[in-house]
Amino acid sequence: MRRQSKVVKIGNMAIGGQNLIRVQSMTKTDTRDVEATISQILSLEEKGCEIVRVAVPDEEAAIAIPHIKRNIHIPLVADIHFDPRLAVLAIDNGADKIRLNPSNIKDLAWVREISLRAKDKGIPIRVGANLGSFRERPANVVEALVQSVLKEIEILEGVNFEDIVVSIKASDVMTTIKANEIIAKKVNFPIHLGITEAGLLETSLVKNSAGIGYLLMNGIGDTIRFSITDKPEKEVKAGFDLLRSLHLRDYGLEIISCPMCGRAEIGVQSIAKQLERRFSNVKVPLKVAVMGCAVNGPGEAMDADIGIAGGKRSGVIFRNGKIIKTENEIKLYRTFVKELKNLIEERQKPS
Amino acid sequence: MRRQSKVVKIGNMAIGGQNLIRVQSMTKTDTRDVEATISQILSLEEKGCEIVRVAVPDEEAAIAIPHIKRNIHIPLVADIHFDPRLAVLAIDNGADKIRLNPSNIKDLAWVREISLRAKDKGIPIRVGANLGSFRERPANVVEALVQSVLKEIEILEGVNFEDIVVSIKASDVMTTIKANEIIAKKVNFPIHLGITEAGLLETSLVKNSAGIGYLLMNGIGDTIRFSITDKPEKEVKAGFDLLRSLHLRDYGLEIISCPMCGRAEIGVQSIAKQLERRFSNVKVPLKVAVMGCAVNGPGEAMDADIGIAGGKRSGVIFRNGKIIKTENEIKLYRTFVKELKNLIEERQKPS
Repeated sequence: MRRQSKVVKIGNMAIGGQNLIRVQSMTKTDTRDVEATISQILSLEEKGCEIVRVAVPDEEAAIAIPHIKRNIHIPLVADIHFDPRLAVLAIDNGADKIRLNPSNIKDLAWVREISLRAKDKGIPIRVGANLGSFRERPANVVEALVQSVLKEIEILEGVNFEDIVVSIKASDVMTTIKANEIIAKKVNFPIHLGITEAGLLETSLVKNSAGIGYLLMNGIGDTIRFSITDKPEKEVKAGFDLLRSLHLRDYGLEIISCPMCGRAEIGVQSIAKQLERRFSNVKVPLKVAVMGCAVNGPGEAMDADIGIAGGKRSGVIFRNGKIIKTENEIKLYRTFVKELKNLIEERQKPS
Repeated sequence: MRRQSKVVKIGNMAIGGQNLIRVQSMTKTDTRDVEATISQILSLEEKGCEIVRVAVPDEEAAIAIPHIKRNIHIPLVADIHFDPRLAVLAIDNGADKIRLNPSNIKDLAWVREISLRAKDKGIPIRVGANLGSFRERPANVVEALVQSVLKEIEILEGVNFEDIVVSIKASDVMTTIKANEIIAKKVNFPIHLGITEAGLLETSLVKNSAGIGYLLMNGIGDTIRFSITDKPEKEVKAGFDLLRSLHLRDYGLEIISCPMCGRAEIGVQSIAKQLERRFSNVKVPLKVAVMGCAVNGPGEAMDADIGIAGGKRSGVIFRNGKIIKTENEIKLYRTFVKELKNLIEERQKPS
């Protein structure tokens, strides 16, 4: 059962409650470089990104926000570290949400000012904690993370601001899970999930999927971000891969392919890669299988809407586990792509 | 709490019970090509692989087993599909475990013969189910997978064979989870986990980590294999990445690195990649951080044993969140590698 949080709006997108779990990413460009930032966000949108965060380390970055926003189509979150002036500037310049920890702002008058402006514009604030919140490593990290977030919430509630999203991230998966399980019971704000500093592509996919996946399966989490030391597009792809795996979203092509063993008769990996690249912008949900051998392939992949399996010098094309065509190896791939395109068109037709 | 299964031995390695959760892989070579298969297994061993499976589609492959075994150092599992003669031949040729579904063997006399020889040599049999076990898509896939495995077990128990490992794999994560949760309660044999036909690298890392991760966190699973349409070494790396994330194994370098935002001052991704490659064979557990900015980096990565963080034209090296050295950007990486090597040596010393 999904945890029922209150609903918060980021631009025209509602998160929390019964709303879809949304996939976020963060730009890796210098926000002051408006061109580069727009181009990266548009590329993220193409992969399905639904909310994007940008770093706002100085005034120039804050002032870039309206120029960026004019050219993109998804809500933009401004990431502010310490300077309350930048928060105000980001709000005035049209940020759809602010990422900020009020405890970093010494003067409560500033917190009040920020919250008034955010309220006026209907902009939520995400508060959060990670190990960077502490000067010394706390004896009980989980408890310290939870307390730290509760303190941030208390400050905002103290100035009558309740349009809040919370996040607790650690680079340690188990710490992240435990802290989120606790905070999920203590507050009713939407929760943003992620494993922070998760590392290079492969390691971070493992850590984020295990941690975010476990929490989602336990009903916790309203938006997610895979933090990856790599291109941000990969964060978005992984987000949808995870949500699709957990039956929480239905989106785009899912390629089912065998790990290739001594029995494989066709180039499973290269065919799967070609298909993934060629159809990466398809948004209609479809399961496509690429299997090494015609004997086991169609059966093992009977869950797939359409599939291809290798044989000696020829292969088969199947739908829902049933072979619909046998083709020699020269024409196999081409025939399959044609069949797949037809199927995609069929599915894209409004019913 | 970990589920307590009976203990089964594969070669000299015990699995199940309180034993470490072991990381498996499967070769993607033609098993009849002895040279190529040995070379792939040795490469898998270098990454830490603890059990390896090879396809045995014909006699020549079965006869290759002793030649392969002479040159490797981990238990070898023979994957047999339908032919009971190949099972007998694999056992006679020294396989440490057989992967076989007795229901595929029509003549019970053969099953009896196989079980007698396996018992004689102390070799376990892994039985399993996936969608390939069915001719038609069952109405209730989870229930059908469970029943299918129970039937395999019943056949073996019918000939007094109980040295069994079970697996239920689907390419669908939720199906795999549900079926394993049920079988875990019904039998007390060790369970091998995996998501089958999980796809290309990125998608399969997501699916396997979410599915295997969830089950392990619920105490289910004694050996694991990431099935990936890519190099098998990646399956092993991912296995350890997952077990490490869940605090189930402590193994090798864990690289913590930030996802890089507009604030990053150093080439986080390239430094992290260089370190990962250079120290990929280190077996002593160590957390190494690579962070984009010197302001937040050391604090956010205070969990790391050692770390590097960028600044303007210079950077810092830190240990456990405390800066121990500031260095200009030209010498930064080299100094860090020296410090890291020292730390690894220190940790490798027998205490």
